[in-house]
Amino acid sequence: MDSNTIIAAVSIFTAGITIALGSIGPALGEGRALAQALSAIAQQPDEASTITRTLFVGLAMVESTAIYCFVISMILIFANPFWNYFLQANGG
Amino acid sequence: MDSNTIIAAVSIFTAGITIALGSIGPALGEGRALAQALSAIAQQPDEASTITRTLFVGLAMVESTAIYCFVISMILIFANPFWNYFLQANGG
Amino acid sequence: MDSNTIIAAVSIFTAGITIALGSIGPALGEGRALAQALSAIAQQPDEASTITRTLFVGLAMVESTAIYCFVISMILIFANPFWNYFLQANGG
Amino acid sequence: MDSNTIIAAVSIFTAGITIALGSIGPALGEGRALAQALSAIAQQPDEASTITRTLFVGLAMVESTAIYCFVISMILIFANPFWNYFLQANGG
Amino acid sequence: MDSNTIIAAVSIFTAGITIALGSIGPALGEGRALAQALSAIAQQPDEASTITRTLFVGLAMVESTAIYCFVISMILIFANPFWNYFLQANGG
Amino acid sequence: MDSNTIIAAVSIFTAGITIALGSIGPALGEGRALAQALSAIAQQPDEASTITRTLFVGLAMVESTAIYCFVISMILIFANPFWNYFLQANGG
Amino acid sequence: MDSNTIIAAVSIFTAGITIALGSIGPALGEGRALAQALSAIAQQPDEASTITRTLFVGLAMVESTAIYCFVISMILIFANPFWNYFLQANGG
Amino acid sequence: MDSNTIIAAVSIFTAGITIALGSIGPALGEGRALAQALSAIAQQPDEASTITRTLFVGLAMVESTAIYCFVISMILIFANPFWNYFLQANGG
Amino acid sequence: MDSNTIIAAVSIFTAGITIALGSIGPALGEGRALAQALSAIAQQPDEASTITRTLFVGLAMVESTAIYCFVISMILIFANPFWNYFLQANGG
Amino acid sequence: MDSNTIIAAVSIFTAGITIALGSIGPALGEGRALAQALSAIAQQPDEASTITRTLFVGLAMVESTAIYCFVISMILIFANPFWNYFLQANGG
Amino acid sequence: MDSNTIIAAVSIFTAGITIALGSIGPALGEGRALAQALSAIAQQPDEASTITRTLFVGLAMVESTAIYCFVISMILIFANPFWNYFLQANGG
Amino acid sequence: MDSNTIIAAVSIFTAGITIALGSIGPALGEGRALAQALSAIAQQPDEASTITRTLFVGLAMVESTAIYCFVISMILIFANPFWNYFLQANGG
Amino acid sequence: MDSNTIIAAVSIFTAGITIALGSIGPALGEGRALAQALSAIAQQPDEASTITRTLFVGLAMVESTAIYCFVISMILIFANPFWNYFLQANGG
Amino acid sequence: MDSNTIIAAVSIFTAGITIALGSIGPALGEGRALAQALSAIAQQPDEASTITRTLFVGLAMVESTAIYCFVISMILIFANPFWNYFLQANGG
Repeated sequence: MDSNTIIAAVSIFTAGITIALGSIGPALGEGRALAQALSAIAQQPDEASTITRTLFVGLAMVESTAIYCFVISMILIFANPFWNYFLQANGG
Repeated sequence: MDSNTIIAAVSIFTAGITIALGSIGPALGEGRALAQALSAIAQQPDEASTITRTLFVGLAMVESTAIYCFVISMILIFANPFWNYFLQANGG
Repeated sequence: MDSNTIIAAVSIFTAGITIALGSIGPALGEGRALAQALSAIAQQPDEASTITRTLFVGLAMVESTAIYCFVISMILIFANPFWNYFLQANGG
Repeated sequence: MDSNTIIAAVSIFTAGITIALGSIGPALGEGRALAQALSAIAQQPDEASTITRTLFVGLAMVESTAIYCFVISMILIFANPFWNYFLQANGG
Repeated sequence: MDSNTIIAAVSIFTAGITIALGSIGPALGEGRALAQALSAIAQQPDEASTITRTLFVGLAMVESTAIYCFVISMILIFANPFWNYFLQANGG
Repeated sequence: MDSNTIIAAVSIFTAGITIALGSIGPALGEGRALAQALSAIAQQPDEASTITRTLFVGLAMVESTAIYCFVISMILIFANPFWNYFLQANGG
Repeated sequence: MDSNTIIAAVSIFTAGITIALGSIGPALGEGRALAQALSAIAQQPDEASTITRTLFVGLAMVESTAIYCFVISMILIFANPFWNYFLQANGG
Repeated sequence: MDSNTIIAAVSIFTAGITIALGSIGPALGEGRALAQALSAIAQQPDEASTITRTLFVGLAMVESTAIYCFVISMILIFANPFWNYFLQANGG
Repeated sequence: MDSNTIIAAVSIFTAGITIALGSIGPALGEGRALAQALSAIAQQPDEASTITRTLFVGLAMVESTAIYCFVISMILIFANPFWNYFLQANGG
Repeated sequence: MDSNTIIAAVSIFTAGITIALGSIGPALGEGRALAQALSAIAQQPDEASTITRTLFVGLAMVESTAIYCFVISMILIFANPFWNYFLQANGG
Repeated sequence: MDSNTIIAAVSIFTAGITIALGSIGPALGEGRALAQALSAIAQQPDEASTITRTLFVGLAMVESTAIYCFVISMILIFANPFWNYFLQANGG
Repeated sequence: MDSNTIIAAVSIFTAGITIALGSIGPALGEGRALAQALSAIAQQPDEASTITRTLFVGLAMVESTAIYCFVISMILIFANPFWNYFLQANGG
Repeated sequence: MDSNTIIAAVSIFTAGITIALGSIGPALGEGRALAQALSAIAQQPDEASTITRTLFVGLAMVESTAIYCFVISMILIFANPFWNYFLQANGG
Repeated sequence: MDSNTIIAAVSIFTAGITIALGSIGPALGEGRALAQALSAIAQQPDEASTITRTLFVGLAMVESTAIYCFVISMILIFANPFWNYFLQANGG
């Protein structure tokens, strides 16, 4: 196997695994927070707006860890500096 | 094995594993939130519309992590830049 | 092993594993939501129609992650672009 | 090993693993929903018909993920397009 | 190793693993539902017939996933189409 | 290694693993159901006969999944069609 | 390695693993049922005889899955049909 | 490696692993039952003799699964039929 | 494989795995804290501002562990000292 | 590697792993029983002597599974029949 | 592979894994403590300042274990004594 | 690798793993018992001496399983009979 | 690979893994204790000083296990006796 | 690889893993006991001195299992009898 093949294969595999593993934690965490938010609204309907606002700001923060993974995953596929180097080095 | 075969095999395997692992977290998180929503409606029927609205906005946010995985999976199958490169390089 | 054999073997294996792993999360999540729905109906029978409606819309959303896996699985078996390429390349 | 042997071995192994792993989630999810249904009937016997109806519609939805696995498993054994290709290619 | 040996070995191993893994989920799910049924009967003896009827219909549904595995397992041992092909091809 | 040795070794290993893994789920499920039955009898002694009857019918159903494994295990040792084929083919 | 050595080694290893794994589920299940029985006796001493009787019949049923494993384990050591075949075939 | 060495090594390893894995389940199960027994005595001191008697009969039953493992382990070390065969065959 | 290829492949794989594994803990931890915050607001609406302020300061602290991983991941892709060394050494 | 080296290496490794794995279950089980005993004494001080007596008899029974492992471990180090055989066979 | 390549590859991989694994525990621990702090503030608003102060001192202590990992990770990338040695030894 | 090296390497590795794995169970078990003891003292201060006495006798029993591992670990390092044999055999 | 390379690679990898794994337990344990401390302060504000003092002494004790790992990790990087030996032996 | 290299590499790896794994159990156990101690002080402030004293004696006992690991780890690095033997044997 030449260098280009190895780098491409590793990039493809890593990009997939990164977002796959990286989506487990945020999805579970957001699901838990969302469940508690609905319970809190049912318990204290008058505070629904405060609860909802805090919920969405917090969800955005949890989502940020999934987005880190998505960013790395996208960089590996579309803006991979190692791949660009080997393309130039091997006259790709 | 030539380069094309390796890249294709890795792409196929990664595409499947990505969506398979990536669906576990969102499905469990959404299931939990949905379960709590039903419990909240039963407890506070008058707030059903607020609860349902918050639920579906939240579910969409949780679903987004599954969609990241689906997007990566689809890119790897139908718009894989590494595959396109090797097709051109090897005159595919 | 020639290219066609490798691509076919990887496609078969990935198709099976994708739907197998991808059915665990949705099944558990749906089971949880369904269980809570029945509990909510028993607690608040007058809201049974609201609960049931929310339940089935939510279940459809959870089911969607299983369907992503099923779609990828079917694509890999019946509309696999990599397989089509190798069939043409090798005059299959 | 020739191509036919590899494809057959991978198909057999994948077919078994797919339904084996794919039955864990639905069985646990259905068991949980069923348990809660019985508890709900004991708590609110007057709603037994509503609960039972919702239960069986919901169980069918959970069962659907097991059926996806069973369908893929059966396709791999009895209608495997890759196997058919190799049978023709090798004059099987 | 010739083709017949490989196919036979893979079939034997897969048949065993399929039913072994496939019995874990249904057994746990049925055990849970059964436990809750007994608890429900103790709590509401007058509804014992409704509970028992719902229990056994539900258990049959859970059992179905174990039966899928058993069917695949039996097919692999006694009606394996790949094995039949190789027996004919190799004049077995 | 000749074919007979491979088939025998795989059959022995699979037979043991099948019943070993297959006994975990049923044993845990039956233990849970039995525990709940005793609790139910203590709570509602007058219903002891109904509870016990439902318990043993249910246990038989859970036990069935263990028996599937035991049947496959026994078939692999004493009525293995693949083994019989190789005995004849190799003049065993 | 000749055939006899392989068959013997696989039989020894499988016999040990079968009973080792197979004792985990029954032991945990029996421990749980036993614990609940003692709790039930403390709660309803007058029903001690009914509880104890149900307990021991149930324990025997749980124990049966351990005994399946023990039987397979003993067969593999002392009445292994594959071993007997190879002893005859190789004039052992 | 000659046959005797392989059989001895496999026997030693299997004997150790069998009792090691086989002691986990019974120890946890007995610990749970014992804990509940003490709780039951504290709750209902007048029934201490019944509880203790049931406890020790039950513990013996749980212990039996550990003893199965210990028996297999001892057979593999001190009365291993495969080892005896190879000693005779190789004039050991 | 030459040195550049190895270093690039390891860097790509490690960058992905680092952020993927590193996002699980923070996402779960933040989800838990967020869930409790919503519950606390529902319980004590008058303290919503104190709770929210403490929540976001705390979330930032939890997020810091995810950011450590993101920093290492970015360093490995865009400012990798080992990669720079090999580029110079091999006249890349 | 000659036979003596293999047997010695396997014996050392197995002896260590046996007691290491075998101490996990008993330690957890005894810890649980001990914790409950202290709770029971605090709840019913008058029964302290009965509880303590039952506790120590029970702990001895749980400890027995750890001792099985310790015995096997010691036999493998100091009274290993396979090792003795090879010492004699090789004139050690 | 020459020495420099091996040391660099191991350093890159270890640096990533160290911070990735090392962030799981602190993130979960901090999330738990933060969740309880918010609950405590809601329960006892008058003690908010004491709770918050104790929380942040404690969080700093938990964070210290993540920082240990970050320090080791940074040392491995930017101040690795083994790497420096090989650079000098090989005239890098 | 000569015999002495293998035996020494296996002994070192086993000694470390034995005490490492063997300390997990006792530490968790003792922590649980200690936690319950403190809870019991707070609940029933008058019985503090009985509780403390029972606690320390029990902890010693739990600690014994860790000591078994420590003993085996020390034997493997400082009084290893296999090592002594090879030292003599190879004139070490 | 020469000796120096092996020792350096193993030292780097072990140093990272040691602190990474070693930070999981202390971080979770400290997080739990901290959470309970905040809960205790909210419940009994008058004892805040006693609780805080006990908390920090205890946290230091838990932290000690993380520090053991950090010490070993630092010794392996900066004061590794094996590394020093090979540097001298090979004239490094 | 010569003997010295192997022994050194195994010693380094084992020393790190031993303390890393060995710190998980004690840290979790101590964290649990500490958490309960704080809860007990809040519940029964008058017994704070008894609780604290029992806590620290108990923590020392739990810590002892971590210290066993630390001792073995230090012996392997600084007083390793196998290493000393090979240094002398090879004139190191």
